[in-house]
Amino acid sequence: MDKLYTLGHQVPTKKDFIDTVDFDQSEIIDIIKVSRVVREYIKGGGYLNLLFHKTLAMLFEQKSTRTRVSFETAMVQLGGHAINLAPGAIQLGAHETIEDTAVVLGRMCDMIMSRVDRHESIEALAKYANVPVINGMSDRVHPTQGVGDMITVFDHWPTGKRPNELKFIFVGDATQVCNTLCDITTKLGFNFIHYGPDNHRITDEWLEIGRRNALKYGGSCEWTDNPDCLKGANFIYTDVWYGLYDKETPKEEYMKDFYPKYQVNDEMMKATENPDCKFMHCLPANRNEEVTDSVLDGPNSVAWDEAENRLTAQRGLVLYFGRVAQAALDYIKQQKEAK
Amino acid sequence: MDKLYTLGHQVPTKKDFIDTVDFDQSEIIDIIKVSRVVREYIKGGGYLNLLFHKTLAMLFEQKSTRTRVSFETAMVQLGGHAINLAPGAIQLGAHETIEDTAVVLGRMCDMIMSRVDRHESIEALAKYANVPVINGMSDRVHPTQGVGDMITVFDHWPTGKRPNELKFIFVGDATQVCNTLCDITTKLGFNFIHYGPDNHRITDEWLEIGRRNALKYGGSCEWTDNPDCLKGANFIYTDVWYGLYDKETPKEEYMKDFYPKYQVNDEMMKATENPDCKFMHCLPANRNEEVTDSVLDGPNSVAWDEAENRLTAQRGLVLYFGRVAQAALDYIKQQKEAK
Amino acid sequence: MDKLYTLGHQVPTKKDFIDTVDFDQSEIIDIIKVSRVVREYIKGGGYLNLLFHKTLAMLFEQKSTRTRVSFETAMVQLGGHAINLAPGAIQLGAHETIEDTAVVLGRMCDMIMSRVDRHESIEALAKYANVPVINGMSDRVHPTQGVGDMITVFDHWPTGKRPNELKFIFVGDATQVCNTLCDITTKLGFNFIHYGPDNHRITDEWLEIGRRNALKYGGSCEWTDNPDCLKGANFIYTDVWYGLYDKETPKEEYMKDFYPKYQVNDEMMKATENPDCKFMHCLPANRNEEVTDSVLDGPNSVAWDEAENRLTAQRGLVLYFGRVAQAALDYIKQQKEAK
Repeated sequence: MDKLYTLGHQVPTKKDFIDTVDFDQSEIIDIIKVSRVVREYIKGGGYLNLLFHKTLAMLFEQKSTRTRVSFETAMVQLGGHAINLAPGAIQLGAHETIEDTAVVLGRMCDMIMSRVDRHESIEALAKYANVPVINGMSDRVHPTQGVGDMITVFDHWPTGKRPNELKFIFVGDATQVCNTLCDITTKLGFNFIHYGPDNHRITDEWLEIGRRNALKYGGSCEWTDNPDCLKGANFIYTDVWYGLYDKETPKEEYMKDFYPKYQVNDEMMKATENPDCKFMHCLPANRNEEVTDSVLDGPNSVAWDEAENRLTAQRGLVLYFGRVAQAALDYIKQQKEAK
Repeated sequence: MDKLYTLGHQVPTKKDFIDTVDFDQSEIIDIIKVSRVVREYIKGGGYLNLLFHKTLAMLFEQKSTRTRVSFETAMVQLGGHAINLAPGAIQLGAHETIEDTAVVLGRMCDMIMSRVDRHESIEALAKYANVPVINGMSDRVHPTQGVGDMITVFDHWPTGKRPNELKFIFVGDATQVCNTLCDITTKLGFNFIHYGPDNHRITDEWLEIGRRNALKYGGSCEWTDNPDCLKGANFIYTDVWYGLYDKETPKEEYMKDFYPKYQVNDEMMKATENPDCKFMHCLPANRNEEVTDSVLDGPNSVAWDEAENRLTAQRGLVLYFGRVAQAALDYIKQQKEAK
Repeated sequence: MDKLYTLGHQVPTKKDFIDTVDFDQSEIIDIIKVSRVVREYIKGGGYLNLLFHKTLAMLFEQKSTRTRVSFETAMVQLGGHAINLAPGAIQLGAHETIEDTAVVLGRMCDMIMSRVDRHESIEALAKYANVPVINGMSDRVHPTQGVGDMITVFDHWPTGKRPNELKFIFVGDATQVCNTLCDITTKLGFNFIHYGPDNHRITDEWLEIGRRNALKYGGSCEWTDNPDCLKGANFIYTDVWYGLYDKETPKEEYMKDFYPKYQVNDEMMKATENPDCKFMHCLPANRNEEVTDSVLDGPNSVAWDEAENRLTAQRGLVLYFGRVAQAALDYIKQQKEAK
């Protein structure tokens, strides 16, 4: 039990969460651990107040439902508060440089989370703010989604499997979610495949990152457009085809590229030859484009648990980067023992 | 005293507040009761923390001052937090179906309140979210306004009158507020009249609802354009003439229909032949159109108390549908007895 | 020590903070005192919960980063909550008169802060709301900025100087920040100079206010376009040249008026002949227009402390106008003595 309640790492004073590639396996596991323990504790009616009177500035360059609501709820459930700076509230780089905005927010708030149009913006925020900065999605990666997704994988772990026996397939467009999953799944030792069309394939840079992880942790990493890859999959994951909100691809174009081959439907799920293969989606879903109703609403879909695990992950992340994750585990352990 | 602190009903796990027509008299009275007891307690300096760490998602398709501020304050005063999803923050049915948004919000928050363009939207939210959903106004009804208004009626109850002796007149355009008042006033046994022009009259469907209530609870329900109805009124209520924000009627048009006959002015108040007749308005008011300054700011206007009772009602509603209304009453009773 | 923890004034029930001219020296010093004591206490890890369950309505007619975030954080750190009514959420005077909005907000919230386009709007809010109203900037003045700035001056007080020996120069466009500083610096007994072009000079009305203060408190007040004034300055302060967000001056125009003479650069700082002269800016800065990077990021810049002191000031202000400033001081004193 002690191991369950002890983190492998001490978190340094000003540590940011910009990209999962900056973190090693044991750090990712620490974050997942605290997320899951805190979830169980709160679902059981427990209260944690470790972020009492603390503020998280949420800076959105793009709209977001899940990221916004999950972070705001996470802060509330831990005794803190999230300040919502909606798209337009602050225009990064308009009346003020990003750097100056970062310094000022860092002087007034305890943590910053931002969804940015360009990855360089989140890097600039992290460089200039003197408080931890969390990337709530950029055009390059979506690390908080990755953490929530790995929690979901742990929750629905195929019985008896070791990480290296796990096949995780991302289907369709190589979005920023695909990039992050390529890194985080291989870091946890899984076998990762991007199954998508050549003109939307994951970049060699990311494949290389995944392969280096695989060498270290024993999984594998590849891209393919061959449907044979589906066989034996434990998780089929997909994302929308239309691209980023601010530069959406016209429907005719993306349908030509992806449809029908890369639609996750009953046929594709059957092609896994694994009746327990789970379906995942970061949402929002464009129903009956990248995934059919029958799969998204079917018994193998864990997409709704996955959405809820955004909240699970954000609680873990703000505790971890707020440097009270170990305090949270200690407190919960103590509460359990007192019973 | 025990009766004052005891609800007639136990609230089921997932109960929504979409329309007052779904509730019987004793449930409405329960909500009013907890609202008024909690108001007295908080105004007296008491604290209630029963929604500690709980979140209410507020989803607005249209702007709102009163509904927004009253729910947000209510949550704060009960120890919780309201997440403001302003118009545009989530576009219901745009990048995601309403149903999917409902499921996700229900996974992350403890309750949902929404102001919607179309009544079907609030019904869909309620159907798919696994937490209580409160209708913060639709194009059909405005139930939270109705509860606040009935609290105001109780606060300004004409001395010695029984419900069936009470004459409540809604003047002007048959808005969604008019619909809800038609139901809730007759459910409480009052005599309800919609006094307005034929081409803006309350529908037969609503009159029928009111009449069925009247049969059960002893009041009456009618529409008329005859000013004789004003005589003996205890409450004169009105709303703006321009319609819903998103489909406002041009001024020339509505003035032709309503002005001057249906303007609530000193003359109309005098026509009630009741010097104690109260004036009510859900606000915002279009001064000197549907109501004159002299009436709105006059001694018989209870419109500002009514605005404050939006807050009174929202506290009662979130406690009630959060299933801690009885706990609130028990706690307050205990605090009183301890003094 | 007792004097440090005792205010000179008792705050009346409904006292607004619309303009520093309505306050005398000792009141300003009271606000600064509570702000600085509370800052030290909170920075030292202390908690204050004196605004528990209290709400501040923040009503913005214009965007704001610093004012918004500092007030919201201040409320959180004192146990309360700020309701953000972003530009557009309520259009003052659109569907409802300002007066009616004021009455309603006053019925639902414990305090109101507003950033308005026109000064008359904040006066109307203050007149009609039955709770304290704080001016978060109007086209006339920026009093909360002034308080934060004076805290910064106290923090960086030139060793051994008396107030009357202090030279405070506002350079450039006579913005509303310039107006407030003209009043508040002379009220504290400093020597205030507006150094700027004739066609952007501070009005005679404000110079007169400053001179009346000077007569009473021993400093001085003047406008000049003569660079000789810079000699001996202790604080050089500037603001952007482009005017208010909603009526910005075209760049060619304002550059012609201000550049290069009124740019705060190394040369101007050298012209003070005071190596300890501090640089201040209310931010946002338009880098390399009104101030060079070398000065803003240089060792004499206290602009970032100044930004943080917006938070310091807002905490003091909401405690003061919430009439719990003395309670805060008493509590902190007690906590210190208990150690």
